[in-house]
Amino acid sequence: MAKKAHVSAYVVASLACSTVLNLFFIVNLYVGGDWKLSWSKKAAAEAEAVAAISCSGHGRAYLDGMVVNGKPICDCNSCYGGPDCSVFLPACAVNVDGGDPYFLEPFWMQHATSSALVVAGWHRMGYSYAHSDQWSMSGELERHIRSLHSVVGNAVTAGRYIVFGAGSTQLLNAAVNALSSDNSSTPARVVALSPYYPVYKSQTDLFQSTNYKFEGDASLWENSTDNGTMNFIEFVTSPNNPDGQLREAVLQGPNAKAIHDLAYYWPHFSPIPAPADEDIMLFTISKLTGHAGARFGWAIIKDEAVYQRMTTYLMSNTFGVSRDSQLRALKLLKVVLQGRGREIFEFGYESMRDRWENLINTLLSSKRFSLQKLAPQFCSFFQKVRAPSPAYAWVKCEREEDRDCYSVLEAGSITGREGGLFGAEDRYVRLSLIRSQDDFDLMLHRLSKISGEEEAKPL
Amino acid sequence: MAKKAHVSAYVVASLACSTVLNLFFIVNLYVGGDWKLSWSKKAAAEAEAVAAISCSGHGRAYLDGMVVNGKPICDCNSCYGGPDCSVFLPACAVNVDGGDPYFLEPFWMQHATSSALVVAGWHRMGYSYAHSDQWSMSGELERHIRSLHSVVGNAVTAGRYIVFGAGSTQLLNAAVNALSSDNSSTPARVVALSPYYPVYKSQTDLFQSTNYKFEGDASLWENSTDNGTMNFIEFVTSPNNPDGQLREAVLQGPNAKAIHDLAYYWPHFSPIPAPADEDIMLFTISKLTGHAGARFGWAIIKDEAVYQRMTTYLMSNTFGVSRDSQLRALKLLKVVLQGRGREIFEFGYESMRDRWENLINTLLSSKRFSLQKLAPQFCSFFQKVRAPSPAYAWVKCEREEDRDCYSVLEAGSITGREGGLFGAEDRYVRLSLIRSQDDFDLMLHRLSKISGEEEAKPL
Repeated sequence: MAKKAHVSAYVVASLACSTVLNLFFIVNLYVGGDWKLSWSKKAAAEAEAVAAISCSGHGRAYLDGMVVNGKPICDCNSCYGGPDCSVFLPACAVNVDGGDPYFLEPFWMQHATSSALVVAGWHRMGYSYAHSDQWSMSGELERHIRSLHSVVGNAVTAGRYIVFGAGSTQLLNAAVNALSSDNSSTPARVVALSPYYPVYKSQTDLFQSTNYKFEGDASLWENSTDNGTMNFIEFVTSPNNPDGQLREAVLQGPNAKAIHDLAYYWPHFSPIPAPADEDIMLFTISKLTGHAGARFGWAIIKDEAVYQRMTTYLMSNTFGVSRDSQLRALKLLKVVLQGRGREIFEFGYESMRDRWENLINTLLSSKRFSLQKLAPQFCSFFQKVRAPSPAYAWVKCEREEDRDCYSVLEAGSITGREGGLFGAEDRYVRLSLIRSQDDFDLMLHRLSKISGEEEAKPL
Repeated sequence: MAKKAHVSAYVVASLACSTVLNLFFIVNLYVGGDWKLSWSKKAAAEAEAVAAISCSGHGRAYLDGMVVNGKPICDCNSCYGGPDCSVFLPACAVNVDGGDPYFLEPFWMQHATSSALVVAGWHRMGYSYAHSDQWSMSGELERHIRSLHSVVGNAVTAGRYIVFGAGSTQLLNAAVNALSSDNSSTPARVVALSPYYPVYKSQTDLFQSTNYKFEGDASLWENSTDNGTMNFIEFVTSPNNPDGQLREAVLQGPNAKAIHDLAYYWPHFSPIPAPADEDIMLFTISKLTGHAGARFGWAIIKDEAVYQRMTTYLMSNTFGVSRDSQLRALKLLKVVLQGRGREIFEFGYESMRDRWENLINTLLSSKRFSLQKLAPQFCSFFQKVRAPSPAYAWVKCEREEDRDCYSVLEAGSITGREGGLFGAEDRYVRLSLIRSQDDFDLMLHRLSKISGEEEAKPL
């Protein structure tokens, strides 16, 4: 609070000085209405030159791509190769395993000017932000995040604490750690309703903590929550990864705490019936702007003690989130907030809805594969009933003998993710719908080929 | 290995296509020898405008600084305030606690053009790098890191594995985790010779692991390493934080493993007698280029199983390091490597040596405070004997009654870091010498005032 008063004093002082500051700014910087570039010009030319490298519409060149003869060669979409991605590789399996959200790449290419970022060599060398409630976090970014939730209407932030993480990934264990007790006689049981995102298990197992232990499917513990000796931490993913269903906590009662993973609770993927108002809510730009590589996420937290424990965790683990990631996230959120989010969410929703419809049509007459059922639902953001547009297809192999659905798809040159990893039967596979259009189209083509095959291939 | 062959095939194919690629590049991009900027121009102008904001030589304005009247106000050095940092705050305590490496900021301002970075809105949205041995790591960056060690001669990298972390901070526990066993009956004992960097303890404690436990000063366990039931993991920091001494492992034998934290083993701070060739060596750009905020570090690892375990940890914890941090690190290392590192290391060494000399001279006749003893030593990088230039002063309060040295300095408006945190007596305090020139000058001024005071102030 003292810090807040300090910041406010700055604001008042700043407002008082604003005339002088403005004058300085205007006189020095914008004489003639145009800025004559100096130190940034070379880097700008370099970035534009790389962006202009042709990857035949099947990939992209990056500033940090592999250099051959002094220039970066292309990173290609699945099953395209060669230095300019012009070679189709028919024998290759299409990658629909990973959640790389390239479906939003065209949006950012269309918004090249507003989303470009120029970083000075001396930008944020230190650990701290001045004028911020938490020294490792950009106050400007926090303000933009609060605005965004208010505009989208997907989460309550008023009176809540916010912490940043390296994606929502880092925040999963930060939350588990904060909700578990250091001096408990038995470790808290970490659970999630099957099918669940595999990282809940793999990350909780990784730390081999005395304070918590992954204990599988939440539904197995429904009748144990009033047993006073057991404490539960439930991951609630809504909409769920892999199946896109809106979910609520399975476990209730004083010994059950929940971590709401709302990574996909954006108008791209889900109707927004109402603002979520949970104790701990996790978000990430990975599935909002599509920048998975930036590794930037945040948690919205009701309880101050939980907020403090999560902050301690994030400091001890990595000294907070890369200040470069924070700068990038800020730039991207500014673009998202232009026009109150309409543009990116319409683009994202329409892309995902079209893909889902195409997929449904492809499998319409298939007796071999079935998909999860999703219904149209009213969305308070779009103010209308919207069709489903999930991030993933949760595919079931329907034939009795197709117990290993992953291998069935693999034989058709499609790489999905095994149902077993999600705590479900291997009769299920997750297929990612959020990758590049190339990946999606190739998957569809191959699905269509194998969905009607009269007999399953021997495994 | 299969991946490597795949990459090599690309290189060959790329070389073959290079004529075509070159032609395209030249014709399309560099007609007339100059690039006409388009989408990057607005962002470049914005960054240059912010960089031109005056902070009176006592701070700097950042793109993501707190916005007042549409423009960011300055982040000021310790004890300067106001929107343009023109107000000196005489009552304020100077911050020489944190290790924010602003001493290199002038270097980057002098190299504004070569260190500027322009990031396209669609840069690295996904998780993966093509043409890289490890999909979450930039192959280009790894190649630059190997070149750098070869140029500086401070670490052997040939035949070694490299992993990236969010600063070396994240790599500390990644290494502890990798060196400890999942099925041991007793947790491995994590130790470090006192005085040691406080994060070794705080981070190891944080995870409350069944596999390892922080057990304090390594010297207490010197005679226990041949007890077959005890396994040790020793952090060896060389040069040491806080006292700048070159160190070797205290514990030896088959049950003792070491993690060499070489964050400060660069010509800025230390003579480089020979390339380090240890099992696990940790580095960070924080203390190399001065970009602590970027949160980028790396480990050089001999053993493949340890490398695999560390990789699993880094994936499960954060899905690798922010691709934005990796891009920034690459840009900065390119500048460092220009002229084979001479420029930045000479700048850094001279700055730190001058500060150390000034500090020694200030305390020369003081009976109240003493400093660690450091001798000139031959440096293979500079090919000469060099004077000491440590990152921190390890100050001892010499008067019998000055048991709480932190409070003695605090009474003189200097905020250091308590000796107790380093596993040492509170008669010691660490003072950071790597912050801004303002912070250093103010600290010196205040030290000089209190160092000659005849009597200690009552606490």
